[in-house]
Amino acid sequence: MTNMSRFAEPMAQLIDELKKLPGVGSKSAQRLAFHILRSSDEDATLLADAIRDCKAKLHLCSVCNNITDVDPCTYCSNPTRNQRLVCVVEEPTNITAIEKGKSFNGVYHVLHGTLSPLHGVGPEHLRISNLVKRIDSGEVDEVILATNPTVEGEATAHYLSQVIRRPNVKVTRIATGIPAGADIEYADEVTILKAMEGRREL
Amino acid sequence: MTNMSRFAEPMAQLIDELKKLPGVGSKSAQRLAFHILRSSDEDATLLADAIRDCKAKLHLCSVCNNITDVDPCTYCSNPTRNQRLVCVVEEPTNITAIEKGKSFNGVYHVLHGTLSPLHGVGPEHLRISNLVKRIDSGEVDEVILATNPTVEGEATAHYLSQVIRRPNVKVTRIATGIPAGADIEYADEVTILKAMEGRREL
Repeated sequence: MTNMSRFAEPMAQLIDELKKLPGVGSKSAQRLAFHILRSSDEDATLLADAIRDCKAKLHLCSVCNNITDVDPCTYCSNPTRNQRLVCVVEEPTNITAIEKGKSFNGVYHVLHGTLSPLHGVGPEHLRISNLVKRIDSGEVDEVILATNPTVEGEATAHYLSQVIRRPNVKVTRIATGIPAGADIEYADEVTILKAMEGRREL
Repeated sequence: MTNMSRFAEPMAQLIDELKKLPGVGSKSAQRLAFHILRSSDEDATLLADAIRDCKAKLHLCSVCNNITDVDPCTYCSNPTRNQRLVCVVEEPTNITAIEKGKSFNGVYHVLHGTLSPLHGVGPEHLRISNLVKRIDSGEVDEVILATNPTVEGEATAHYLSQVIRRPNVKVTRIATGIPAGADIEYADEVTILKAMEGRREL
């Protein structure tokens, strides 16, 4: 009715909602909205349902804080995995990355963040308590700190190493160095320094 | 229960659905899904509802084929716009782009595509018939062909100019040339050629 150069209301609404997603600007939101409009009714319903289900059915594993629809999660309830070897990661997505390596057969603990005083994130904002509980009840032999080798990740690893230090628990940190297949030529100084520091005898 | 390195089922389902969107790969789908999972219940519901509403409430304007929730659309029913000046565009999104220019006060006709023999798109796949009907009932003074200056867009404009040619209807084509604010240095040959061809006396 107005002279405004806008889309029809349901379209404008969808574009607005899509724009709230990370990395989706006005143009992308518009492209996605038109794609959804043109997709089959079935596909649109599947997407809408998946969004609802995701919120309704998923929660955090009471043991490791991984995102799961069963509790404990499939890692924590898997008898073929070493339940005494715990790999601590920042985010649930990191688990997929580590699983891709196919070399780790222990279980996980998800912090859901890193310490970041600048952003006001202190230890109380991370999910650490159930890790400490697992360690104190003697269920753990080794904790691998697999937070990112960033300033925040390193600080978090350092903090955790203090908090979880116990006589019979080994605390380790994943190696920082030149990525496999990469060229030393293009590695930054910190990476080269870390790679040198972490050198091993052959 | 299995040893598979996958997300919980509702998460995997949402990621699969998001991956169907254009320009969304595995990594982006994962990032979007985690964002949705972490957003408020309200935001997730708004997004899911917007997707449903968009499919349920939107249809094409019977006059101009624009996407709308009312029929005729806000452009076609607007008495302050020149209903006898019709701008033909490829897609509904093109309307927003032209409206941004704030120089056009006519109405639109959306083709929903371009001729593309290589992809098997012929005139029968475009929405041309209601444009011809409008012209034949003497409702139109001028048709501006605003398809893109691409091979397909030019072919479509050429084809349409033949189909809608009538004694009392002016058929025009938007100008191709160097974009405003751009450097001639970086313009391609075809654009320079077109800009030269389209030169006007000052």
